[in-house]
Amino acid sequence: MKIYDWPTGPYPARVRIAVAEKNLRSRVRFETVNLFKGEHKKPDFLAKNYSGTLPVLELADGTFIAECTAITEYLDALDGAPTLTGKTPREKGMIHMMSKRAELEMLDAISVYFHHATPGLGPDVEIYQNAEWGFRQRDKAMNGMRYFNAVLKRHPFVAGEVFSMADITVIGGLIFAGLVKLPVPEECEALQAWYARMQERPSVKNRVTMSDPIEA
Amino acid sequence: MKIYDWPTGPYPARVRIAVAEKNLRSRVRFETVNLFKGEHKKPDFLAKNYSGTLPVLELADGTFIAECTAITEYLDALDGAPTLTGKTPREKGMIHMMSKRAELEMLDAISVYFHHATPGLGPDVEIYQNAEWGFRQRDKAMNGMRYFNAVLKRHPFVAGEVFSMADITVIGGLIFAGLVKLPVPEECEALQAWYARMQERPSVKNRVTMSDPIEA
Repeated sequence: MKIYDWPTGPYPARVRIAVAEKNLRSRVRFETVNLFKGEHKKPDFLAKNYSGTLPVLELADGTFIAECTAITEYLDALDGAPTLTGKTPREKGMIHMMSKRAELEMLDAISVYFHHATPGLGPDVEIYQNAEWGFRQRDKAMNGMRYFNAVLKRHPFVAGEVFSMADITVIGGLIFAGLVKLPVPEECEALQAWYARMQERPSVKNRVTMSDPIEA
Repeated sequence: MKIYDWPTGPYPARVRIAVAEKNLRSRVRFETVNLFKGEHKKPDFLAKNYSGTLPVLELADGTFIAECTAITEYLDALDGAPTLTGKTPREKGMIHMMSKRAELEMLDAISVYFHHATPGLGPDVEIYQNAEWGFRQRDKAMNGMRYFNAVLKRHPFVAGEVFSMADITVIGGLIFAGLVKLPVPEECEALQAWYARMQERPSVKNRVTMSDPIEA
């Protein structure tokens, strides 16, 4: 399999963490798409992913799978033993709800803030900006952090008792928050303690360097 | 199970169609949440779904599952024989990608247009609007229709050879387009032909009236 991504990107992080959690590192090659040159908005890449976003997974048969949730579903199903997306109906429902909520209320909101209310990827890539909308989304993301803090006071992981795709999505949100220098509110102690635990996981800790050539 | 929704809503339609496709009608009770009175933004409902959106599924044990994709995952897994969300890793990946793409490029974009660039649910509910962003999203949705038209020229259903959650999401988009009077472009013949076929399915045709009391 081949993954098109940008090593330090927050959305790429979601798939890199999933690859590591599923012990699939040896079956994946990474190819960098230069975000700051806007390569993800050029026709060549848009043919792979209409939405022009990273990451994208390419299968051996040439099929392209975009969207982190979709890629995670694919990777998690490969060995017939899902550990990230749930086994029972209730687990599947809860994990998908909390992961989507983490996108809506935090990760995607921070992305809109970055692309619309900061210089983002630079003037050549950010050809349309709506700063008012961007700031609105920043405020939404800060409230999202408070929401997930409340969730993590109640149970050890975002969707309940075990690590899942929903944790990975919140991790993506906090990675993006770090990049754009949105600090987690001080009172969000449960969220901060959980994030410190998450950063101890090898899948999270080694995500950026995992694509360095290992058979050099 | 109980479903909180609004009978004619485009997002509620996604779950109503899934319920019917899975033959679960007899196991579900519907409760109306009045969108035009903004009941979905009041504390009582926000305690059920932080994001303040419909529909929400309530399980017998009091668990709330929000987000259409999450509810569909739950419903589709109940009988151990998924028909909407894919069986193989590749099917799961493709269906989730195309469903998410239908949200991003059409359904959610039309929703933003409705809430930001039209009177939406009225001045008491739409307390913040960003019309410029709304019109941008309308244009994105029109391009989304052209994209899905191209997809449906290549294969009979949105994610390939069989009906799936991805079709349901595009149906949700076209239901919303109809409500806000955004016409499908004339040249989108494959999309229109597919939609005509979809409207013949009992799950789609009877979605609004399915919540009328049947054991009266």
